[in-house]
Amino acid sequence: MQIAILLYDRLTALDAVGPYEVFSRIPETQVVFVGERRGPVRNDTGSLGLVVDATLVDVPEPDTVVVPGGPGQTALMSDGPVHEWLRAVDETTTWTTSVCTGSLILGAAGLLRGRRATSHWLALEQLTGLGATPVSERVVFDEKYVTAAGVSSGIDMALAVSGRLGGDLLAQTIQLGIEYDPQPPYDAGSPAKAPAEVVTFLRNRSRFVLEGAE
Amino acid sequence: MQIAILLYDRLTALDAVGPYEVFSRIPETQVVFVGERRGPVRNDTGSLGLVVDATLVDVPEPDTVVVPGGPGQTALMSDGPVHEWLRAVDETTTWTTSVCTGSLILGAAGLLRGRRATSHWLALEQLTGLGATPVSERVVFDEKYVTAAGVSSGIDMALAVSGRLGGDLLAQTIQLGIEYDPQPPYDAGSPAKAPAEVVTFLRNRSRFVLEGAE
Repeated sequence: MQIAILLYDRLTALDAVGPYEVFSRIPETQVVFVGERRGPVRNDTGSLGLVVDATLVDVPEPDTVVVPGGPGQTALMSDGPVHEWLRAVDETTTWTTSVCTGSLILGAAGLLRGRRATSHWLALEQLTGLGATPVSERVVFDEKYVTAAGVSSGIDMALAVSGRLGGDLLAQTIQLGIEYDPQPPYDAGSPAKAPAEVVTFLRNRSRFVLEGAE
Repeated sequence: MQIAILLYDRLTALDAVGPYEVFSRIPETQVVFVGERRGPVRNDTGSLGLVVDATLVDVPEPDTVVVPGGPGQTALMSDGPVHEWLRAVDETTTWTTSVCTGSLILGAAGLLRGRRATSHWLALEQLTGLGATPVSERVVFDEKYVTAAGVSSGIDMALAVSGRLGGDLLAQTIQLGIEYDPQPPYDAGSPAKAPAEVVTFLRNRSRFVLEGAE
């Protein structure tokens, strides 16, 4: 089995590495980081380089594809090699997935039309313009299309997909292997739970949060 | 403020990227990935390259240091440049932290003697031989030494440290920014919660899980 994770400049690193850490623990599975050009891309802050090992043409038929989000998403909303690749691999994937604003890329490529999908809470409504129905849930399954909410939600998404791919015991083994027994020191992980001033602050800075623009 | 995250060959990627995604959102803070040599290291499975941007000598006085774990930890248990650097920077850090078996590296460098500390659940008892008192908790504070349990726990650790560094509102803003509202599809993230057969399976393969040895 082959799982392809798309890398691009100014992505959010955890969007890619969260699902990676789960999927890489499925036995007899190759996870490959794929991008337009081999070599390092830089993440959204510029302080982390992640290496693209395979170009798009090197990975024509992955079983599962993961599209992470991040400010660089805005550069991938027009038709081009990434959209063409996504549409081509989608013809044979078992699962086509995204994390955070990665769902906007899937949507822009035309893959979420008429489907229920989610995204980062600040970007959720943008799905409407791409023909999808926004759903405010952490992980949304619509047939083989699995979209996850903001950044950290990719871990939950990948565990859910791993359970479908290899059964509950496999997913539980991965969860215990990465000791994923979350105990956040605050309960502010969704706009419904966070203090109002925190929600307002981020809404006012949403352009910065989503696009990295100051 | 400067936060240094150590990279080395065969580390577990999420150990580093989890805390990174939190710490990188603290305003006016530089997060730097540091290692023995500039350029990419490969993670535990070999399928992800993460780029070291600064050598140890380039980062003599970080405010916070993060030591991730992973199978490559076993190559960093002897005295050498990494231990020397850890002891040197520890003299001026505000927080000296680790994730997963990164605590074994801190311990081997002599920094956890007489302290309460944690590690991946399969490695916890190894702390005793390094002079520390093993504590089966997700995040353990002992003065400025903050150790986290396995892999994914670094996110919780970094949020807790961020709260100490910049206050509760900052930590909550980061938590909402990365939408860290965990909803694992299974409840198997600790040995007390996982099915017995899953715990036994991983215990029997602990050498593989911790050291990557087949």
